[in-house]
Amino acid sequence: MDYPTIRLMPKAEARAIRHGFPWVYSDELVMDRRTRALAPGSLAVLEDTERRPLGLAAVNPLSRIVARVIDRDPEAEIDTAWFAARIGQASRLRERLYQQPFYRLVHAEADGLPGVVIDRFGDTAVVQPNAAWAELRLEALVEALRQVTGVGTVVKNGSGRVRGLEGLAEETLVLTGALEGPVPVPMNGATYMADLTGGQKTGLFYDQRPNHAFAAGLAQGARVLDVFAHVGGFALAALAAGAESALAVDGSEPALALAEAGARASGLDARFATRKGDAFDTLAALDAESAQFDLVICDPPAFAPSKKALDAGLRAYERVARLAATLVAPGGYLVLCSCSHAADLAKFRAASARGIGKAGRRGPIVYTGFAGPDHPVLPQLAESGYLKALAFRLTE
Amino acid sequence: MDYPTIRLMPKAEARAIRHGFPWVYSDELVMDRRTRALAPGSLAVLEDTERRPLGLAAVNPLSRIVARVIDRDPEAEIDTAWFAARIGQASRLRERLYQQPFYRLVHAEADGLPGVVIDRFGDTAVVQPNAAWAELRLEALVEALRQVTGVGTVVKNGSGRVRGLEGLAEETLVLTGALEGPVPVPMNGATYMADLTGGQKTGLFYDQRPNHAFAAGLAQGARVLDVFAHVGGFALAALAAGAESALAVDGSEPALALAEAGARASGLDARFATRKGDAFDTLAALDAESAQFDLVICDPPAFAPSKKALDAGLRAYERVARLAATLVAPGGYLVLCSCSHAADLAKFRAASARGIGKAGRRGPIVYTGFAGPDHPVLPQLAESGYLKALAFRLTE
Repeated sequence: MDYPTIRLMPKAEARAIRHGFPWVYSDELVMDRRTRALAPGSLAVLEDTERRPLGLAAVNPLSRIVARVIDRDPEAEIDTAWFAARIGQASRLRERLYQQPFYRLVHAEADGLPGVVIDRFGDTAVVQPNAAWAELRLEALVEALRQVTGVGTVVKNGSGRVRGLEGLAEETLVLTGALEGPVPVPMNGATYMADLTGGQKTGLFYDQRPNHAFAAGLAQGARVLDVFAHVGGFALAALAAGAESALAVDGSEPALALAEAGARASGLDARFATRKGDAFDTLAALDAESAQFDLVICDPPAFAPSKKALDAGLRAYERVARLAATLVAPGGYLVLCSCSHAADLAKFRAASARGIGKAGRRGPIVYTGFAGPDHPVLPQLAESGYLKALAFRLTE
Repeated sequence: MDYPTIRLMPKAEARAIRHGFPWVYSDELVMDRRTRALAPGSLAVLEDTERRPLGLAAVNPLSRIVARVIDRDPEAEIDTAWFAARIGQASRLRERLYQQPFYRLVHAEADGLPGVVIDRFGDTAVVQPNAAWAELRLEALVEALRQVTGVGTVVKNGSGRVRGLEGLAEETLVLTGALEGPVPVPMNGATYMADLTGGQKTGLFYDQRPNHAFAAGLAQGARVLDVFAHVGGFALAALAAGAESALAVDGSEPALALAEAGARASGLDARFATRKGDAFDTLAALDAESAQFDLVICDPPAFAPSKKALDAGLRAYERVARLAATLVAPGGYLVLCSCSHAADLAKFRAASARGIGKAGRRGPIVYTGFAGPDHPVLPQLAESGYLKALAFRLTE
């Protein structure tokens, strides 16, 4: 192969990269004219300051993460066979863990495909090529995906904030095969309906699966309230596990319609209800109605997506905890989730406990959960594990 | 009730106690002659500096934790009915979560019984009254335990470091009922044998249950190595989940004998083997034999039980990771555990990743686990959650 070379600045941590850290930030790379001229998505051999090769990198001079190591072998050829090897390795982990092919198949860096996310829904796969190198090589990637998994339908989901940082346009379309309406997804004993082309608010996220399962284990005979319910992740799992009733609250009509369709597909609709509205308003309204639940779950969007938003975000988590705790019957359970990178586990736990305390309630934490094993993380990036779930038992 | 009073020093955090923090350290309490003269295990009304009551506390002038709040009601009467209410509340959580009565029934502060641990093994319960107030009231506690659970046999386990800090003597005996030989314990599809009077090395710990389950989910068809195996916690669960073979390594002959008895009781002994020896020596010896496993688990004793022991402890975790990683076949899994309070998750993860790197291996973390929900924690004490389990996939 005849790749150009790029070189680390003297201050950059070549050791971290040798140990598997995959990212080079823009201030760590010698940005000479030749490097600045590389097209977004180019491949180049990354060298240390002594010109020793560290591996093959994907370059994007437009991005703060200016280079991502994609292979330790500086001569690797990035073709269909290369993609098939990576996707095959990722697939073997999931096949070991799940009975049915419904999972996140590729979770970016941790599965050796920086910036690439692939979710599998049975015969359909949804690809998010959120880095320029992958967008450029999408055809080889999709061909490899079809070879390894045999899926008939492949959707490209080109929405979301991350693509903007890479200078990529928004675009969601069916690349191959056909997609007719929402796809039924079996998970934790329920059937969910996933609208795979309707965008973020109506997709389906696998990351909460183990936390859905834990909450469902508390739900036998319980009156359940699922706030920020989306397509009913917690509510339907709780009903499948024997909850007496479940009320799903969300601001999105299409999401609640999918939740209702899921409840019907699961044969659980007789015990399921929805309520459209702002979550904070609805929590306050339920309190005014003196409503009580044995299990309340709040899985809000990221209130603290960045360090700048951290303080306001933590106040929002505290407020959710306070409003929700008020609705928990004595001895009941409160499950609080955060998908904010910036709010680490300790900060999120403290904000949640403060909110519960301000509601005049208290009790121990019985569970701390993260994203499931189809969302692996590199040890070097594990600190930023974004998803946390805490289950409190409100004994007082 | 006519309890004496004790008073916080002006600098002490009355607010934390009002919000549920249960401990008063010796430098936070006014230690006048009257307070110093209180017998270990006395009850007293804890007051703030303005003489407002904060709750009823158990006092032990011999302990660094000089007072523990046991009830927000300063007039509470600590009798059999009081113990029955606390144990009943703890029992309802476990009955909701577990099909069979084998679990930690009471986990000290988080279940409202500071210093008291109760494990349930079917018809037998093992009580650890690790604080003077509970030791003094053991009769009422055991009577309440029998009323709530109906267990026929109650064992007092008075071993362990913590009792020394409270000035309590070591003593393990059957208080009521009878115990004949090890008790069979169903967990994760296997049967374990628990010797409930043989002390720490031959008891059985429930805390690893969810981590056993996760590791077992990786074990289908795998060659499994379980180091620091104790009574076979990980090995037997892996065999029950379809492992091809499991080798359990431990330094304790009695523990391995119980593991073998468990394998027989589970009908898994044909695929189970043991090897007695020092873990470090055995890991090196297996490497010299070019042994390879698809799943290796290391669940060592606390290498960093205190802050003073932290650096040496982290080096020991790193060494375990390095030696164990060498034995993992390509694409296989390495599960590393720590039960050290002083080594928090980030430090333990970094030490593990360093060791894996030094073995020339790398790969993502697919799972981070803690103690199960029968080991709840107070939010204020959650930072010290002692048990962590990490599952690495060694892709390279």
